[in-house]
Amino acid sequence: MISFNFNNPTNILFGRGMLNELGKQQLPGRKACVLISNGKSTRANGYLDRTLEQLEIAGAAYAVYDKFTENPLKEHCEEGGKFARANGCDFIVALGGGAVLDSSKMVSSMAANEGDLWEYAKGKEFPNAGLPIVTIPTTSGTGSEVNCSGVISNLKTQEKIGFGDVRNIPVLAIVDPELMKTVPARYTAYQGFDALFHHAEVMISKGLNILSEAIALSAIENVAKYLPRAVKNGSDMEAREHIAYASTAAGITMNLTLTTAEHSMEHSMSAYHHSLPHGAGLIMISKEFFQFFIDRHACDDRFLKMAKAMGIQNADKAEDFITALVELQKACGVDDLKMSDYGFEKSEAMTLAKGARSMQGFLYTSNPCEMTDEDVAGIFERSYC
Amino acid sequence: MISFNFNNPTNILFGRGMLNELGKQQLPGRKACVLISNGKSTRANGYLDRTLEQLEIAGAAYAVYDKFTENPLKEHCEEGGKFARANGCDFIVALGGGAVLDSSKMVSSMAANEGDLWEYAKGKEFPNAGLPIVTIPTTSGTGSEVNCSGVISNLKTQEKIGFGDVRNIPVLAIVDPELMKTVPARYTAYQGFDALFHHAEVMISKGLNILSEAIALSAIENVAKYLPRAVKNGSDMEAREHIAYASTAAGITMNLTLTTAEHSMEHSMSAYHHSLPHGAGLIMISKEFFQFFIDRHACDDRFLKMAKAMGIQNADKAEDFITALVELQKACGVDDLKMSDYGFEKSEAMTLAKGARSMQGFLYTSNPCEMTDEDVAGIFERSYC
Repeated sequence: MISFNFNNPTNILFGRGMLNELGKQQLPGRKACVLISNGKSTRANGYLDRTLEQLEIAGAAYAVYDKFTENPLKEHCEEGGKFARANGCDFIVALGGGAVLDSSKMVSSMAANEGDLWEYAKGKEFPNAGLPIVTIPTTSGTGSEVNCSGVISNLKTQEKIGFGDVRNIPVLAIVDPELMKTVPARYTAYQGFDALFHHAEVMISKGLNILSEAIALSAIENVAKYLPRAVKNGSDMEAREHIAYASTAAGITMNLTLTTAEHSMEHSMSAYHHSLPHGAGLIMISKEFFQFFIDRHACDDRFLKMAKAMGIQNADKAEDFITALVELQKACGVDDLKMSDYGFEKSEAMTLAKGARSMQGFLYTSNPCEMTDEDVAGIFERSYC
Repeated sequence: MISFNFNNPTNILFGRGMLNELGKQQLPGRKACVLISNGKSTRANGYLDRTLEQLEIAGAAYAVYDKFTENPLKEHCEEGGKFARANGCDFIVALGGGAVLDSSKMVSSMAANEGDLWEYAKGKEFPNAGLPIVTIPTTSGTGSEVNCSGVISNLKTQEKIGFGDVRNIPVLAIVDPELMKTVPARYTAYQGFDALFHHAEVMISKGLNILSEAIALSAIENVAKYLPRAVKNGSDMEAREHIAYASTAAGITMNLTLTTAEHSMEHSMSAYHHSLPHGAGLIMISKEFFQFFIDRHACDDRFLKMAKAMGIQNADKAEDFITALVELQKACGVDDLKMSDYGFEKSEAMTLAKGARSMQGFLYTSNPCEMTDEDVAGIFERSYC
């Protein structure tokens, strides 16, 4: 039975050089709060200047807030909201990677609402709609440019929670693969795998539907084909644009189908080990996570479709997906990631498992079969090295 | 090079029984102008009563305008706009087939603007945004439920023109395949082929992109697989829902990629022969239309992909698409349509060709190679019987 809700209102402009079109768009306000990370690259690569120039062309004023870290923090989202309000901004422009894009939803809401962000993270509804958001991704991984939610960390409580307000779906996304040319090889791989896992999780999700499947399989095919090239040569623009497509498509499929507990598990990992890049954490647990469902024959046919999309044309068993996955990790030089390198100990497995469920338990409902805390701890243990 | 603009803001609720969810949605106004056709079926099948009941549950008032014909007329769009205004309606609910959905965009604009609709059809911009639109399709063919445009006929000038205002993209579409159960077999076939040709035209269009290709191929596969079943047994809900998916997906791909001159050609046919159903006209010319591009090797690889999607797994030449197309027409009992049965004469070919270009010349820009009026007249002549 086909049943879905497709709510993807973001106007997406995709293509090389598309940032130059921002100035011609009708913007959703008169003064932008421009959000960037606390790193150097957005400024050094000229992306910030080019964005501000485009805002000027469009006749919009701006103020820049530049404090977001890799796993974005509650404090900066709250501060960003106050900053936007204090500067009289009436819309948000998020220029950066997943951290900045995720944060933009929270900044948007906190600019229009009072209180502690963590109360909203725990389920309280934002009384007021946030400011309208324009997104300009500079990495390929999250699809956050077309979603309403974000994953935010609270260092005090050691929590990392994904939440959002449907009113915060961006109104406009400028996806310009040229802006991704400068992402270092290792991060290109991490982010590309994040996009891959979004789609692979959609594929095994209970909420898979005919439309999300068509888009997810197309994206999976493109990651498998182009990610090794993008990692090897960051200036390979053909490869970059195909990975950028897969990433934005991940945002679209997530507007159709909920992902699974793999994401809960990784968010628990980086909540406890804050320096772990999200994509790296996903890669570390991916083989054992998907193997769990293959062992239980939870959705063999879907693994088969993914294996074929990843290039194993004569795939005839679910395990072929794992073969394709491991080959891709080798081809991208990320088959050697060790949890121990990021300070994990094997004895943490159950703590991580409980954290995953308490922080993002809602994703477990999408798993294609039951998965207990013991099961999750087992996946962490088998992934450990 | 990947480049696209994806603007698909309609919130789509798809699935059997979804009409019952209308009352729970946040509607875009307080009084609906409900548009239906001048036929009996919308009332007789209870669809109108159920829709009005849902509006009451949502706390909305309504007024019903019921004059739209199969190829909808300029006069009714203008009258509908005045009706909406006179009744103090602040949003539109379009309940019906392609004719009603197409008309709803014009009624929406004419409720908020003065003047002659045909001036807008010829390129004048609507000064004011129209009323927000909710669509509830009762047929599977056009994808109009998620598009901003419509094709309207002017009997005085013998023109049939497609036009629209991007501000008129529906805010909400309820796609309930149960509502399509009562469509007679012959119309099920006509409309299903309309959906197929939307996607096939997108596939050969110059504007094809990676996302529209993924969705179009998925839809083409579903039409080929399920349309004969839906035609054979209108109560086969599995078949109905797959065809409904292909139809709504056609609206989505058209929000990514412009269709081609086949649609211009058919609109010219039914402008001159008003009783011709749109889908029937498309079927009549389809073989020769696509053969034209195959003969010129305009995009062999894309025909090959379509042939495979339609079930010819070992397809190895562009012509295999024509084989699959003809087989599908036979399987749906529409391989015997004759232009002469609708009053056409072979000598009209050039008149129809010139009409196609003058009424919808902009679609010619999507063709994968040049196509002159002589070429178009030749296609009409070869299609004639």
